[in-house]
Amino acid sequence: MAKAPVLTPQADDFPRWYQDLINKAELADNGPVRGTMVIRPYGYGLWERMQSDMDARIKAVGVQNAYFPLFIPQSYLTREAEHVEGFAPELAVVTHAGGKDLEEPIVVRPTSETIINEYFSKWVQSYRDLPLLINQWANVVRWELRPRLFLRTTEFLWQEGHTAHATQADAQAFAARIQRDVYADFMENVLAMDVVLGRKTVKERFAGAINTLTLEGMMGDGKALQLGTSHELGQNFAKAFQTQYLSKDGAQEFVWQTSWGSTTRMIGALVMMHGDDNGLRVPPRLAHVQVVVLAIKDDEAVVAKVREIGEKLTAAGLRVVVDDRTDTPFGRRAVDWELKGVPLRVEVGPRDLENGTAMLARRIAGGKEPVALESLETLLPKVLEEDQARLLQESRDRRIARTVDVATLDEAAEAAATGWARIPWADLGPEGEAKLAEQGVSVRCLVAEDGSVPTADDQPGTLAIVARAY
Amino acid sequence: MAKAPVLTPQADDFPRWYQDLINKAELADNGPVRGTMVIRPYGYGLWERMQSDMDARIKAVGVQNAYFPLFIPQSYLTREAEHVEGFAPELAVVTHAGGKDLEEPIVVRPTSETIINEYFSKWVQSYRDLPLLINQWANVVRWELRPRLFLRTTEFLWQEGHTAHATQADAQAFAARIQRDVYADFMENVLAMDVVLGRKTVKERFAGAINTLTLEGMMGDGKALQLGTSHELGQNFAKAFQTQYLSKDGAQEFVWQTSWGSTTRMIGALVMMHGDDNGLRVPPRLAHVQVVVLAIKDDEAVVAKVREIGEKLTAAGLRVVVDDRTDTPFGRRAVDWELKGVPLRVEVGPRDLENGTAMLARRIAGGKEPVALESLETLLPKVLEEDQARLLQESRDRRIARTVDVATLDEAAEAAATGWARIPWADLGPEGEAKLAEQGVSVRCLVAEDGSVPTADDQPGTLAIVARAY
Repeated sequence: MAKAPVLTPQADDFPRWYQDLINKAELADNGPVRGTMVIRPYGYGLWERMQSDMDARIKAVGVQNAYFPLFIPQSYLTREAEHVEGFAPELAVVTHAGGKDLEEPIVVRPTSETIINEYFSKWVQSYRDLPLLINQWANVVRWELRPRLFLRTTEFLWQEGHTAHATQADAQAFAARIQRDVYADFMENVLAMDVVLGRKTVKERFAGAINTLTLEGMMGDGKALQLGTSHELGQNFAKAFQTQYLSKDGAQEFVWQTSWGSTTRMIGALVMMHGDDNGLRVPPRLAHVQVVVLAIKDDEAVVAKVREIGEKLTAAGLRVVVDDRTDTPFGRRAVDWELKGVPLRVEVGPRDLENGTAMLARRIAGGKEPVALESLETLLPKVLEEDQARLLQESRDRRIARTVDVATLDEAAEAAATGWARIPWADLGPEGEAKLAEQGVSVRCLVAEDGSVPTADDQPGTLAIVARAY
Repeated sequence: MAKAPVLTPQADDFPRWYQDLINKAELADNGPVRGTMVIRPYGYGLWERMQSDMDARIKAVGVQNAYFPLFIPQSYLTREAEHVEGFAPELAVVTHAGGKDLEEPIVVRPTSETIINEYFSKWVQSYRDLPLLINQWANVVRWELRPRLFLRTTEFLWQEGHTAHATQADAQAFAARIQRDVYADFMENVLAMDVVLGRKTVKERFAGAINTLTLEGMMGDGKALQLGTSHELGQNFAKAFQTQYLSKDGAQEFVWQTSWGSTTRMIGALVMMHGDDNGLRVPPRLAHVQVVVLAIKDDEAVVAKVREIGEKLTAAGLRVVVDDRTDTPFGRRAVDWELKGVPLRVEVGPRDLENGTAMLARRIAGGKEPVALESLETLLPKVLEEDQARLLQESRDRRIARTVDVATLDEAAEAAATGWARIPWADLGPEGEAKLAEQGVSVRCLVAEDGSVPTADDQPGTLAIVARAY
């Protein structure tokens, strides 16, 4: 009799597989207030690694961290007309505090452009104060009607960058730099995720932006997920909040701005891009647990050996957990580490000790083979780098295999049932985009033929990437 | 004519000096919603260093990070009677979200014991799941009627630890370990702060705890500030949320719990403990900028040299900023770095280059003297460690000099005008404590004669430390 699968198979029901995995790998639970989530230690460990790696990249481009309040006066939101129109339906509002009703309702931040501009307008006086490059790590709240853990949650964690520049060219270049040097570099090299860099259509732009750059990834079921965005805000918020500087020529000028964000949604993307029917597969460079060393049996020599191996591998710079919980059956523990997607398992039993070997199980490449104990320190770092590259390649291969070039709107809609379609934007246009939207299909982004990011929607040769999306 | 002081002198008006410093050193601004704050990059840099150092200590005692929702159903708060009584007056309440009035109001977390216990009750099944040791870094909201930047703010940042244990002895030992090995160790060795470890009286306990351990520091004006607390919660929350485990004997038992927190208030303490009339003095081990290398004049050779020194010192493992903004007068920049409390300034002008020297200004020890350029890499790390020790010693000397042993309530109240008083708790007792409270004086904590933390209020020889407090 075949064993019942640990997870609903992907092929049977992809969304259900996703929920099963999040739950059984102990990544997150639903919170008590609709759409909120509890990020459990194993899931939060992924986020901590994302944060520290991304934070270093953000600082490397000259940005400093700061912290702005959670609570924004409702009146701030209304100062930028498109912004409030975009966010009003998603706001959570505090009307009562300290035992009294408030005179002015307070909004729980859905994003911080407004409150940050209030302070930028004080801090920026002269051209010497520019560029002003600020980031914050924070929680934000957007009321979600159809929440899904990590992908769409009422509260999520993110970083939001906000910058002010003297010229439009500077702001434009900085928004592109964040998209490419910070986000794409991090996603490809750490998350092992293939991403397409593009430009959003007017319909899909951030509320209040003049241009939104995006990174889109193809999930295991062929749908798209927006993984990060970088916006040019033009002078919209600068004018709403009077953020001005004295130029070298002695004139008062409005600043040009950008904002950009990436969120805990990246954990959901990790699951949907790299997961399989046995669970998650964590890219080695991201993994907070790269190697688990398991004692197969409750045997004194075995337990001593796994601890020794654990110390050696840790000293070699790997991130290691020793699993000597021999009061739990070995099989159950192995399945659990597989579900959690730990890249490598080193399994040690009494017979292995005799042979001077251990079984090495590779979660990403698959398979299991005996390896000499003394080779572990040199072998494992190589295997981890190999598997990191393999994950990226797999995601790239899938995106290429499941993307088709089409000529008509009907073909695009059909292709979106199983993958992505590419269609000349000049042929589709905003009208075609609106028709696709009726069928639940969207233009994920605009790209140039050579794969670069177009600097205008009507740049000749621009292609639209069309897909269903999370 | 004497120059006007940059800050209101401490001796003239300590609270005003504090506000001046926070503002001019660019640590924080008031937020638009009453009691909230904007933490500016220089202030946030201090918090980032506090976080990373504290986080390592928390992990070293076996605790894992996780994240629980900002929003708590109002009904959760009411399940533990003392807890809701303590927090009800400070709550901010969301009544409206997603364009609709909510059926059940939502509380913005003032602390997370309730929502965390809801999940602990699901996660803990057997004695094998214990101890469960969890921490989160988060923002919390407590409505403040008399806000003061960093010290009392409506929203603040903190870490809150929450643990569940099989026995009371385990929980008790863990709460003490956090107080001593995590908090005291961090505050003394990184923040260079003298702290007194004690036990709160019943009156001053956390709402819902059976015992609160505290760390109290003496500020520059002789007042006390609570710097961190570690609570034994007994089984109060376990019973309210049915957090039970199956013991080895097969019985259902309630867990014993702790919770503990430290906050952005530590930045305020840093200012009030180490600041002087020229600004902040940041302990070298904490400082995100340990050394600033300043070009005195706009001279090509000078600018090249300060950059070279900056690179060398960075390579030597120091945290360095190069200040070559020669379009701003040197004097103004020097005053600014002094205000910000950067431990060492290396100042280089054309004449220094000729002599192969630089002026070394020590913010903590005071004074300025020429040092050979080639000695900087070996000299500076030593000077930094010396000044780290000096700051701790200064704060310890002040606390000892300004603490007096008294025998009566009147003497205690009098001593609290300028410092701390120590009085036998058996003589003072809850009635004396209530009388002192009428004069704005409180029992900061109970300590044993030998300086250890009493395990009960009525432990023979217990002393009360009495003071005015922030």
